Amino acid sequence: MEFRLIERIRELTAQPRDDVRIGIGDDAAVLAVPQGQELVVAIDTLVDGVHFPRGTAPVDIGWKALAVNLSDLAAMGATPAWALLALTLPDADPVFVDGFSEGFSRLAQPHRLALVGGDTTRGPLSISVAVHGFVPPGQALTRAGARVGDLVLVTGTLGDAAAGLHALQQPLRDDDHRASLRDFLIARLNRPVPRLAAGAALRGQATACIDISDGLLADLGHICTASGVGVDIEAALLPRSSALLDLYDETSALHFALSGGDDYELCFTVPAQRLAEVQSDLSRIGCGVTKIGRVVEGDSVRVRGTDNAWLTTNDRGWEHFA
Amino acid sequence: MEFRLIERIRELTAQPRDDVRIGIGDDAAVLAVPQGQELVVAIDTLVDGVHFPRGTAPVDIGWKALAVNLSDLAAMGATPAWALLALTLPDADPVFVDGFSEGFSRLAQPHRLALVGGDTTRGPLSISVAVHGFVPPGQALTRAGARVGDLVLVTGTLGDAAAGLHALQQPLRDDDHRASLRDFLIARLNRPVPRLAAGAALRGQATACIDISDGLLADLGHICTASGVGVDIEAALLPRSSALLDLYDETSALHFALSGGDDYELCFTVPAQRLAEVQSDLSRIGCGVTKIGRVVEGDSVRVRGTDNAWLTTNDRGWEHFA
Repeated sequence: MEFRLIERIRELTAQPRDDVRIGIGDDAAVLAVPQGQELVVAIDTLVDGVHFPRGTAPVDIGWKALAVNLSDLAAMGATPAWALLALTLPDADPVFVDGFSEGFSRLAQPHRLALVGGDTTRGPLSISVAVHGFVPPGQALTRAGARVGDLVLVTGTLGDAAAGLHALQQPLRDDDHRASLRDFLIARLNRPVPRLAAGAALRGQATACIDISDGLLADLGHICTASGVGVDIEAALLPRSSALLDLYDETSALHFALSGGDDYELCFTVPAQRLAEVQSDLSRIGCGVTKIGRVVEGDSVRVRGTDNAWLTTNDRGWEHFA
Repeated sequence: MEFRLIERIRELTAQPRDDVRIGIGDDAAVLAVPQGQELVVAIDTLVDGVHFPRGTAPVDIGWKALAVNLSDLAAMGATPAWALLALTLPDADPVFVDGFSEGFSRLAQPHRLALVGGDTTRGPLSISVAVHGFVPPGQALTRAGARVGDLVLVTGTLGDAAAGLHALQQPLRDDDHRASLRDFLIARLNRPVPRLAAGAALRGQATACIDISDGLLADLGHICTASGVGVDIEAALLPRSSALLDLYDETSALHFALSGGDDYELCFTVPAQRLAEVQSDLSRIGCGVTKIGRVVEGDSVRVRGTDNAWLTTNDRGWEHFA
């Protein structure tokens, strides 16, 4: 199979790049990393029914399989270049392949990302994508540099994707207005937009950065661990979409914002004196950014409610094998 | 889960390399490709019950998941450096993870291959590995350079892995001698040894090269297509192990050698005047090599039997979605 499906995907995702010496069709791809750049690589897998609901449209699966990986590059401040695709399918379904390729390609094109190799196998539906990007030497953003006193910021809004998943699972009996709000949330689940431009803009500015895949608390926890710090979050500051706030009560909306996965926004820390500059840099590229808290001494994340009391949630986002 | 399992795998596969700027534990790895080298990348997936029999020992799965990918690098003449691992498991089974990591690591260590990132997810057992290696600019071996008149060679022996799979599926009632032959064949199935040293030695010598994963005929067919040539093979010349010939009759042994997958030997073409040099180069690194045929005008592979008649087999190796 390998050949025919990958050929089809190649047709649909053609993206010429000078740095691809040998692309799809040999035992491996041969690539030229630009001089003076470090290579940034990540791999992520989506499993049917685990990382997307069964029945998700192939075009959404193709988009999301690439998006979650590009989000990892964004979190490192890297510029994407190439991808490898390992696609496991129950059968050689050309309709699936066309839809998948369209979604993958639609996201790849504007980033000039080339699919350079792959493997298709028969088995339960799952997709692994490995992405490759570049970053100037020593400038990759990591989880490890947050310092006490830094401010904690996030891009975009939080909790939409988790609410979208919830909305998908509820019986639909809405008026048009509510239906359009649900559609917005579901699109946030199915078509996450990796914050690549924001990540690149944060190079040399953010002291630590992570993308929110498992939920704000869980992912901020990784920054705490890697940086050896604590973080205090103000619930009242969490940015939430009007769709989320219109469709869900405060308790649910807060839960989604703190613990919902799949947002693929960036959460990062900056020294207080850089706040204005970072806000203005991100605004200029059309990326909303909100200060939500502060780095403190400690080793974990605390959330202060609107009544000033610490929340005692043990919702720490879902870990797949928690 | 991601964190704990990957941490365990990291412990078991630790491999320090100066060119790993940031390894496992952040959103992505940051790597330095040596100046003056091109990057060679491949990805391959193993699915439970498709690419290895259900019940295969975790240590064998770990070895093989890396081996099939390193074999792709070998076929390009590349030197391995780094790997990414996407491991999908039905549950967080530490016994599986330890066995898997031991097998993976045992193959990675002698090649100084570092595991630099990964993702573990819950789902039906499958493993995707993406490998990265280096090759001097323009020196990668491809499938596309075979010329009419070139000789066709293979490393090692053919058909052992397919016979090993057959032996595994047969009820075992053997004397000790036959049991040891079966064990040899099964080890060839479960612990393929990627021909990395041979691939590197063939740089600048072979005109085309491929690794035998789908079977000799199928894989030679890829060289024919990519190079725009035909190939004539002599059945009498096919190198076969004494284990294969002792346990199977000529018809079965020939079938396994021509169409059996999973051998992970290299099949390559060289100009006739380089034959002696290539044979001596490979002998010096302990790699057996056998001339099995010749590149001719045409577009496909033909096999001549010992009676000089062309074989009319339509066994072209298995393609997963054939």
